[in-house]
Amino acid sequence: MNDTTQKIESHRKLRLGMVGGGVTAFIGGVHRIASRIDDRFTLVAGALDNDAERGKAFAVAIGIDPDRAYDDFESMIAAEAKREDKVDVISIVTPNFLHFPVAKAALEAGFHVICEKPMTTSLEDAKTLAEVVKRTGKQLFLTHTYTGYPMVRQAREMVASGEIGELRRVQVEYAQDWLAAPDEDPEAATANWRNDPKKAGQGGAIGDIGTHAYNLAAFVAGEEPKEILAELTALVPGRKVDDDAAVLMRYANGAKGTLWASQVVAGNGNNLSLRIYGATGGLEWWQENPEELWYTPLGEPRRLLRRNGVGATPSATAGSRIPVAHPEGYLEAFANLYKDAANALETGGKAELVPGADDGVAGLAFVTACLKSSAEGGVWIAL
Amino acid sequence: MNDTTQKIESHRKLRLGMVGGGVTAFIGGVHRIASRIDDRFTLVAGALDNDAERGKAFAVAIGIDPDRAYDDFESMIAAEAKREDKVDVISIVTPNFLHFPVAKAALEAGFHVICEKPMTTSLEDAKTLAEVVKRTGKQLFLTHTYTGYPMVRQAREMVASGEIGELRRVQVEYAQDWLAAPDEDPEAATANWRNDPKKAGQGGAIGDIGTHAYNLAAFVAGEEPKEILAELTALVPGRKVDDDAAVLMRYANGAKGTLWASQVVAGNGNNLSLRIYGATGGLEWWQENPEELWYTPLGEPRRLLRRNGVGATPSATAGSRIPVAHPEGYLEAFANLYKDAANALETGGKAELVPGADDGVAGLAFVTACLKSSAEGGVWIAL
Amino acid sequence: MNDTTQKIESHRKLRLGMVGGGVTAFIGGVHRIASRIDDRFTLVAGALDNDAERGKAFAVAIGIDPDRAYDDFESMIAAEAKREDKVDVISIVTPNFLHFPVAKAALEAGFHVICEKPMTTSLEDAKTLAEVVKRTGKQLFLTHTYTGYPMVRQAREMVASGEIGELRRVQVEYAQDWLAAPDEDPEAATANWRNDPKKAGQGGAIGDIGTHAYNLAAFVAGEEPKEILAELTALVPGRKVDDDAAVLMRYANGAKGTLWASQVVAGNGNNLSLRIYGATGGLEWWQENPEELWYTPLGEPRRLLRRNGVGATPSATAGSRIPVAHPEGYLEAFANLYKDAANALETGGKAELVPGADDGVAGLAFVTACLKSSAEGGVWIAL
Amino acid sequence: MNDTTQKIESHRKLRLGMVGGGVTAFIGGVHRIASRIDDRFTLVAGALDNDAERGKAFAVAIGIDPDRAYDDFESMIAAEAKREDKVDVISIVTPNFLHFPVAKAALEAGFHVICEKPMTTSLEDAKTLAEVVKRTGKQLFLTHTYTGYPMVRQAREMVASGEIGELRRVQVEYAQDWLAAPDEDPEAATANWRNDPKKAGQGGAIGDIGTHAYNLAAFVAGEEPKEILAELTALVPGRKVDDDAAVLMRYANGAKGTLWASQVVAGNGNNLSLRIYGATGGLEWWQENPEELWYTPLGEPRRLLRRNGVGATPSATAGSRIPVAHPEGYLEAFANLYKDAANALETGGKAELVPGADDGVAGLAFVTACLKSSAEGGVWIAL
Repeated sequence: MNDTTQKIESHRKLRLGMVGGGVTAFIGGVHRIASRIDDRFTLVAGALDNDAERGKAFAVAIGIDPDRAYDDFESMIAAEAKREDKVDVISIVTPNFLHFPVAKAALEAGFHVICEKPMTTSLEDAKTLAEVVKRTGKQLFLTHTYTGYPMVRQAREMVASGEIGELRRVQVEYAQDWLAAPDEDPEAATANWRNDPKKAGQGGAIGDIGTHAYNLAAFVAGEEPKEILAELTALVPGRKVDDDAAVLMRYANGAKGTLWASQVVAGNGNNLSLRIYGATGGLEWWQENPEELWYTPLGEPRRLLRRNGVGATPSATAGSRIPVAHPEGYLEAFANLYKDAANALETGGKAELVPGADDGVAGLAFVTACLKSSAEGGVWIAL
Repeated sequence: MNDTTQKIESHRKLRLGMVGGGVTAFIGGVHRIASRIDDRFTLVAGALDNDAERGKAFAVAIGIDPDRAYDDFESMIAAEAKREDKVDVISIVTPNFLHFPVAKAALEAGFHVICEKPMTTSLEDAKTLAEVVKRTGKQLFLTHTYTGYPMVRQAREMVASGEIGELRRVQVEYAQDWLAAPDEDPEAATANWRNDPKKAGQGGAIGDIGTHAYNLAAFVAGEEPKEILAELTALVPGRKVDDDAAVLMRYANGAKGTLWASQVVAGNGNNLSLRIYGATGGLEWWQENPEELWYTPLGEPRRLLRRNGVGATPSATAGSRIPVAHPEGYLEAFANLYKDAANALETGGKAELVPGADDGVAGLAFVTACLKSSAEGGVWIAL
Repeated sequence: MNDTTQKIESHRKLRLGMVGGGVTAFIGGVHRIASRIDDRFTLVAGALDNDAERGKAFAVAIGIDPDRAYDDFESMIAAEAKREDKVDVISIVTPNFLHFPVAKAALEAGFHVICEKPMTTSLEDAKTLAEVVKRTGKQLFLTHTYTGYPMVRQAREMVASGEIGELRRVQVEYAQDWLAAPDEDPEAATANWRNDPKKAGQGGAIGDIGTHAYNLAAFVAGEEPKEILAELTALVPGRKVDDDAAVLMRYANGAKGTLWASQVVAGNGNNLSLRIYGATGGLEWWQENPEELWYTPLGEPRRLLRRNGVGATPSATAGSRIPVAHPEGYLEAFANLYKDAANALETGGKAELVPGADDGVAGLAFVTACLKSSAEGGVWIAL
Repeated sequence: MNDTTQKIESHRKLRLGMVGGGVTAFIGGVHRIASRIDDRFTLVAGALDNDAERGKAFAVAIGIDPDRAYDDFESMIAAEAKREDKVDVISIVTPNFLHFPVAKAALEAGFHVICEKPMTTSLEDAKTLAEVVKRTGKQLFLTHTYTGYPMVRQAREMVASGEIGELRRVQVEYAQDWLAAPDEDPEAATANWRNDPKKAGQGGAIGDIGTHAYNLAAFVAGEEPKEILAELTALVPGRKVDDDAAVLMRYANGAKGTLWASQVVAGNGNNLSLRIYGATGGLEWWQENPEELWYTPLGEPRRLLRRNGVGATPSATAGSRIPVAHPEGYLEAFANLYKDAANALETGGKAELVPGADDGVAGLAFVTACLKSSAEGGVWIAL
C-alpha cells in the first residue's frame, strides 16, 4: 500500500485557542484530538473552565504555557489580541449559552472561530452573529460533526450529481437512550446543563440532537424544507424540556421528510441515520457504522459503498486517511472539519463542506419553528 | 431433534371455499398455500375470477370439483348453503371493493369468513360488517399477515407482560418501491386496481400498506392512538392517490408514535418494521428478517431473540413448526392465521391472535381519519 | 401484484407413502409440509414408527386411511405393490441406518424414492444403492435441503455462467450448538440415535451436517475436490463420535477450500454458510438469512441480490412462490425439492437441481475419506 | 456527557524518532497520527526514506527540525545517542527486511523501539532480537494493530475471566482482495516489496496478514496452539509467494482452530475476524465493524456488546476516548498501542496489552512452521 504519486506538502501550524473544554467536559477533548490528528494546529492558549483555577491547572497539564492559561474568555481575547504570536483561531466548546458572547467577542477582536453547535441559543443571536461574521470578514466554522464523515460527503455529492434523481423522501433519525432514566437518577444528572433552558437554550432533544439531524439532512439533500410541523414531548415524567421530537417536513418541489430525535429510547446509543430517496434511487447511511453507504438505484441491486472504496467521490477520498475497510470513525470525521478549516484559513478561501454561520442561523430557525409549531398544538410553520 | 413429548393430535379438515384468487392473482395463491401448510383445510369450492369461465377452469385445474366451481360469489353462497357438506369457511381474496358484499353475504348465509384486508373500502361498511358478525355469531378473520409472525406475537406478549415498561414511543414503517416508477410504466400497470379509488377504496399507500403498519403497531402495543395527524402525498407525478404517508400519533398515556408508509422509495422491497420503546426497554423487528427480534432492556446489552429460541414466549412457540435458525417466513406467518382460525372454528372459541371485525373497523377508522387530516391540510384528528 | 401472464397449469397429484416420521420425529413433519406446499402430493400410506401401534395411530390421525397405515416398511412395500392405486413415491425419513434397506426394497419393488440424507451409512451401501437405481430405472431424490433455496440455485447458475471466473477459494461452514452440552445433559439426550454409530453411521458432525456443507459447496461450485485432509474431534468430553470437523480441500485446478462443521459452538443455531470466490468475483450466502446472496465482482461495489429480485436467474425464479422481500424459508426450500421431484416424475425427466444417488455416493465417499484422513493423524486423501 | 470525576493528569511528552515512513508510505502516516492522538509523543527526528534527500525534505515538511532529519538510520542513531535531548523511542516503519537491523541498532544504542510487524524476516533474527531486548533492558513494542481495539481487549479479558469456559474452538480469518488481480496489473504493482521474498521475508499472505490473525487469536485465547498444519497457495497465476493460507491448529487441551488468510478473494477489504468458543459460551468480532463484540453464552440469547457500553471491561474502557456508539476505529486502536507504550515508558513498567519481542518470536515461529508444513506437502508440525 505504497502511494508513489504522493507529493510532499507543507503547512504552517495554526495557533489554536480554546474556550471551555475543561477536565470534566467531553467535547473539549474531542476538539483537541480532532485538531491534532492532521497536525495542522497547535493548542497554545485556553480559558478552559468556569472554575478559573481548575481551568488553568488543566491548561498547563495539557501543555499550554502558563502565560496563556487564562481565567476567562474576556481576558484571553484581550491578551491574545495584543500578542505578536496571537492565536489564529478560537474553538468554543462551552455550554450552549456562552457560544454567542464568546464567538461575538472573538470575531470582533479579529479571530476566526470554530464553534460547537448550536451556534447560539436564540435565533436572534444567531442572526446577529451571522452579521458579525459578515462584518468582520472572519470565518466561523460550526462543528456539525456528522458532515465530516466521508460517506456523508459522498452522499451529498451523489445527490448533487443526480444519482438519485429528483428529491422525493427524506427520513432522518437521531435516537439515543442516555436520558431514558428519570432525571433524579444520578446517572442522568451528568446531563444537567442540557436540561436547563437558560444554559442549553430552548428545546431539549430538538436543540441538542434534532439540529444535528436537520443539518445532516440539509447537507446531503442540498436544500432545506419550506414548512415544518413539530411534535415535541417530554416523555420522561417530570422533565422540563422535550426529550423526544417528531417533525414533518415539506420541501419546495413537493418532496416530503420526517425527522425524529429522541434521547429516551432504550438500546439506542448514538443512532443517527439518514435515508434519502429520489425519483431514480436512494442513499442510506447510519452513523454507528459510518464507513458504509447503501446506494439503491431503482431497478438494480442494492450496492454497498465503502469509504475510500470503489466509486468513492472526490470529497470522500479527500476526507480519508487510510484504506477502505480500515475503519475511520467519529474523531476522524471531526478532524475533517478541523482540516478543512485549516485549509480555508491557509488559503483564505471557503471551507465548502464545513457548516458556517448561515447554517447556524438555519439550525436556530428550525428549532424556533419547531418550538412554535409544538406550542401551538402541532401546526404547520413556514421556515 | 426428536421430541419425545409430542402427543398425537387429530383434527377434522375444514372445508374451505374461496372467492377471488384466480390464476392472475398473487394473494389467492398465498391463501391456498397457507391453508395447506398445517393440513387443517381442504379447498372444495370456489368462485375465483370475475371472468367466470377462466375462474372455473382454474378451479378445476387446482383440484376443485367442477360442481363446486362457481360463476360468482352469489351462486357459490346460494349453492353451498344448500349442501350437506357445505363449506365451513369462505376466504375472500378479491379486489378490495368486493370484500364487503361478499363477506356480508357469506356471514348472513351462515358461513365463517377469512377476509383479506382492508375489511371494506369505507368506515361505514366496516361498521355494518362488524354488526353483521355480531348478529350472525359467525367469525370473521382478517388476514393482517404480519400478526402471524412468531416474533411479532412474542413482541406483543413481552409488551403485555411489562418487559419494556410503560409505552413511550412507537416507530412503525412500511416502505416499498414497486410503485416508484410513474404509472405509464408498463411494470406499474399491474398495480391497476390499487390505483383506482373505486376498486381499492380511498387511500393509496395509506390503505394498502399503512393499515398493515397501523395494525402491527396496535397488535404489539396492545393499544391504539387517540389522535393522529397525517400527511398523504402522491410523490410520483400524475398519481391520483397517495403513494406516501407520514402519520404522527398520540397515545392516551402521552406516548407518541410515527407511522410512515411509502410505495415509492427505491431499494425497499417489503420493508415493514416496528420499533417500540417503553420506560424500561424496547423491541425492534423487521419483516424482511422476521426470525429475529431485538430486545433492548435499558442499561443492559442488546439481546437478539430468535424464533423458537431461548426465551421464546408461548405464542411464539405455538406459531413455530421447525427449530430455531431454520427460517420460517411469510407463508408460515400466513399459515398461523389459518391454523388459529381452524383451532377457533374447531373449538368454537376465539382466535385471540388473529385480527377480527373490530380490527377491521379500527383500520378503516384510521384510514378515514388520515384522509380527513390530510385533506384539511395536516391537522390533528381524534380517532 | 397481479400477474396477467400466468397460465393455468394442472397436475395429477402424486400418491406419497412415508417410512419413518412418527409423532416424535422432527424431519417427517418437515417432509409432509414440504409435500403439501405446492399441492403436488397426497400422503396416502405410511409406516411411520418403529412402535407399530403408535405409528398407525399417528398415521390415521394425520389422515391416512387405516388400511394403508402399516406396521413396518416391509409390509407397506408388499401391500402397496399390489394395489391399483399404489403410491408413486416413498419418502424415507427414518434414522440413518434404515435409509439403505428401505430405499433398496422400495426401488426394487418399483417405487421412486425420496430419501433423507445421508443416503446410507456406508460407502459400500451407497454404491450398491446407486446401482439399484440404475438397474431399476427408478428415481432417487436425496433431500439435501439447502440446494432447494433459490439463492443457492442462483449462486450455482452464476458460477456456471462465469460470473465469478475460474474457481479460486471455497469457504463452507456449518456451525450449530445444540450438542454443545455434555451428553448426560437431559436436553442433549434427544439427540441419541445420532450419537450411536450403529444407527447414525460412522461420523458424527461430519456425517450429520458436514455432508450438507460438502454437498452445498459441490452444488454451487459445480465440482468436487480431488483431495481432502480432515481433522475430526470430539470436543465435548466423553463423546464417542466427532462433534467438530475441519477439512482442507484441493480442487483439480489448484483452487482450495476449507469446510468446517461443528455442533458444539455456542450461539450458532443452524449457521450454514458458503463463500465462494473466483478470479473475477465472489458469492456469499448464509442459510439463516437465505433470501440474500452477496455478489462481489472484483473492482466493483458489493451487490445484495435477493430472491425473486432484480437479476434473479431462471432457477431462482422458478423456485420462488412470492415476491421479493416476502421471506420464504426452509420449508419452501424443502418444498422445491418435492416440487422438482413431482415435475420429474410427471414428465419422466430428471430433476436437475435435486441431488440423487450419485450425490449420495459422493457424500459417503467424502465422509469415508474424512474418517480415514483423521484416523491416520490428519493426512491428505484422494477422493 | 460531562464527567465530573475526571482527574487532571499531566505527562511529559516523549520524544519520538522514526525510521521509514516517507511520503510514499502508508504505514508511516498511520504511526504518526497514532502517536499524536493522545498527545504523548512529539516527533523530533527521522530517517524517513531510502531516498535520503526526499526523506529529509519530507521530514522538514512535517515539522522535524532540519538538524534531526537524517540520511539514514545509522546516522540518526549515532547522532541522537549523543544529544542531551535525544529521542526516547524510535518507531520502525520500514519494509520488513530492515526491521531487524534498525531495531537491533536502536536497542543497542539505548533506545526503546516501536516496531512494525513482522518483527524480523527470519525466526533466527527474531530470537536474536529478543535476546537484545533482554540484554539491553530496553523495550520493544510490536504494533500488532488489532490488539489495540477495545473490543479485542475486552474479549481477551472475558476469556481470561472464564466467560466462555474452557477453550474449544478458534476460527480466525483475514481476507482481503487487494492482490486479487495478477501482478502484471499496474494497480497491484504498488505492492511490490511485499511480493519480493528478499524484502518481505519468506511467506506472502501468511507473513503479511496471517501473522496478524495468529497474533489476534493468541492474544484473545491467552494461548498458542501446540501443532499446526498449513496449506499455502499462490492462487493468482504466476505469483511467487503464497497469497492464500489455510492453517489447522491444535491446542494443548484438545481445542482446535482454523486460520485462513487470503489476499485474493474479491469483495473482502480488510476482513479480519475472530470467533472463539469455549464450553460455556463464545465471542465473535469483526475488524470492519470493530465497535461490536458478540457474546454468546450457551443457552442464552446472543448479546451485542459495544465499546464503552454496558459491561465494558477495564481494558476496554481504558482504551476508549469517546462514548459508546461514537465510532472509534483503526487509528484509535493504533493510538492505544502508542498510549500504552507511553505509559510503560513513563512508569518503567510493562505494557501488558502491547505485543513485544516474545510475540514477535512467536509470529516468526508460526510463519516458519507454516512454510515447513506446506513445503512438506501439508503435514503437522509442532510449534
